[in-house]
Amino acid sequence: MRALVFDRSLRKVVDWPLPVPGRDEALVRVLMAGICNTDLEITKGYMGFRGVLGHEFVGIVERAPDAGLVGRRVVGEINCACRNCEYCRAGLPTHCPNRTVLGIQGRDGAFADYLTLPIANLHLVPETVTDEQAVFVEPLAAALEILEQMAIRPGQSIVVLGDGKLGLLVAQVLVFTACQMTLAGKHREKLALVAGKGIHTVLVEDLGEEKVDVVVECTGSPTGIGLAQALVKPRGTIVLKSTYAGRTELDLARLVIDEIDLRGSRCGPFAPALRALARRQVDVLPLISAVYDLDEGAAAMAHAERHDSVKILLKVSDA
Amino acid sequence: MRALVFDRSLRKVVDWPLPVPGRDEALVRVLMAGICNTDLEITKGYMGFRGVLGHEFVGIVERAPDAGLVGRRVVGEINCACRNCEYCRAGLPTHCPNRTVLGIQGRDGAFADYLTLPIANLHLVPETVTDEQAVFVEPLAAALEILEQMAIRPGQSIVVLGDGKLGLLVAQVLVFTACQMTLAGKHREKLALVAGKGIHTVLVEDLGEEKVDVVVECTGSPTGIGLAQALVKPRGTIVLKSTYAGRTELDLARLVIDEIDLRGSRCGPFAPALRALARRQVDVLPLISAVYDLDEGAAAMAHAERHDSVKILLKVSDA
Repeated sequence: MRALVFDRSLRKVVDWPLPVPGRDEALVRVLMAGICNTDLEITKGYMGFRGVLGHEFVGIVERAPDAGLVGRRVVGEINCACRNCEYCRAGLPTHCPNRTVLGIQGRDGAFADYLTLPIANLHLVPETVTDEQAVFVEPLAAALEILEQMAIRPGQSIVVLGDGKLGLLVAQVLVFTACQMTLAGKHREKLALVAGKGIHTVLVEDLGEEKVDVVVECTGSPTGIGLAQALVKPRGTIVLKSTYAGRTELDLARLVIDEIDLRGSRCGPFAPALRALARRQVDVLPLISAVYDLDEGAAAMAHAERHDSVKILLKVSDA
Repeated sequence: MRALVFDRSLRKVVDWPLPVPGRDEALVRVLMAGICNTDLEITKGYMGFRGVLGHEFVGIVERAPDAGLVGRRVVGEINCACRNCEYCRAGLPTHCPNRTVLGIQGRDGAFADYLTLPIANLHLVPETVTDEQAVFVEPLAAALEILEQMAIRPGQSIVVLGDGKLGLLVAQVLVFTACQMTLAGKHREKLALVAGKGIHTVLVEDLGEEKVDVVVECTGSPTGIGLAQALVKPRGTIVLKSTYAGRTELDLARLVIDEIDLRGSRCGPFAPALRALARRQVDVLPLISAVYDLDEGAAAMAHAERHDSVKILLKVSDA
């Protein structure tokens, strides 16, 4: 099959062996996949991953132990847990220490004709949700994860830092809470993508002195955390969504003095993300900058690295 | 009056003008004061403070707008708030941006014959609490602040990192919750000070691989945070109590992947600290390594810097 593979020097579409589903796993034919910043970070060394990239997808189940799944359109949670350890038993399979992660850790990913996932990870996609929308379920779930971890109260003030793919989703999700919401970024044309949703948008350089209750760091850059520290009120919260390779310098005494709550946030719940899409509560289609055929995967990755792009999709096969 | 003053090159007892209480402030004659790591950090440049050091004290009110206070034995909260801003009105005077802080920021401290504080900051000391105990109210309140900020559940596992003055108090306070409590430090003789309280003590080098729900960082050293990251479970909490000058490198991606909650924690509530002392719930006297006369303040500071010392007190005047 075709697969967009990263192996240190290599980042291109090659011929790759068809994956073999394990026990309780399904073979999924990929229809469409999305490029995430994490995929770009992996090609800079993040996670030390080598293999087929990609973890955002929608596909059709080709083979599964549960015959009722075959032929159904699905999205899939990316953490494949052992279902047996302390974390799995505590209801935290995304933190299973024995996990593999689709296209990130120990498991080939979604930028390929086929992938495998445990059937427990699969979610049926309602007919009213198109492929182009469904491919956003994984990052949308990551945005919703913030609300799984903490209450955002309607009276609070929030700044989402970063007008990339994740920031644009996080702002749309957190505005659900009726909070005072500002999205700060570097690109007027990206900020404009959430116009008319009650989200105040502002260029980072025009941010005032006023501090807010919660800052969500989605810049994907080590400079974001310093800006977040400058923006957050004492006793406020900084949510970290960006992942990148390397270490970052922090003024920890400032965190102590201001009693800041710095909270890491990663993968989230798929079912609410599918509900939000089916209800049209989140508008993902304006975020699509381009759709490439999987054969042009290397060009698609290069486009995703450009600062003027938002979400780049890969068209893999037809329904 | 006598005062232990820090002014870059200077760290010694000098003759210093008697402080003049402002409106709604009391003049307090200091009986006894305690040396905190923050005092030592200030003499390394932390907070850029110059003036009379010290913020842990017990004293006698000499002069006050409220005549009922005169002659009474008091301890005092160190943050002097404006009582008028957004934070003060929200019940967060310790985060007032207009605050001065006794011996730390904009206000001369307690290593002197006299100090001034707003009467709203003063707490009467019950007769059953001795001067030697009362001088621990401020750091004990800082330990209790953790329980003001978050629930520690009885079923949780906790490691307190650092067997210094603060770690020894934090361990004694958090063990109230019936949690599984380990105090990890570098000094067998300091760890022994909390023997018989249900606190498992261990040398840092003997810490196993097992991860815990909450790590409280009290080492006062930039290396503590890395150890805390290695010890905390995914979805766990790291409480930062140490303050020190300078910036620290952190693996932020690890915080995101493991969804760690990193929480700064500073000054705490005095009334519960006084209650805990009056009830003998916390044992502070074994933590006293030496008592110096204020005249020997410079020698006392040098002793407080020695790794074999815990709490060094300054005897300032007699009741």
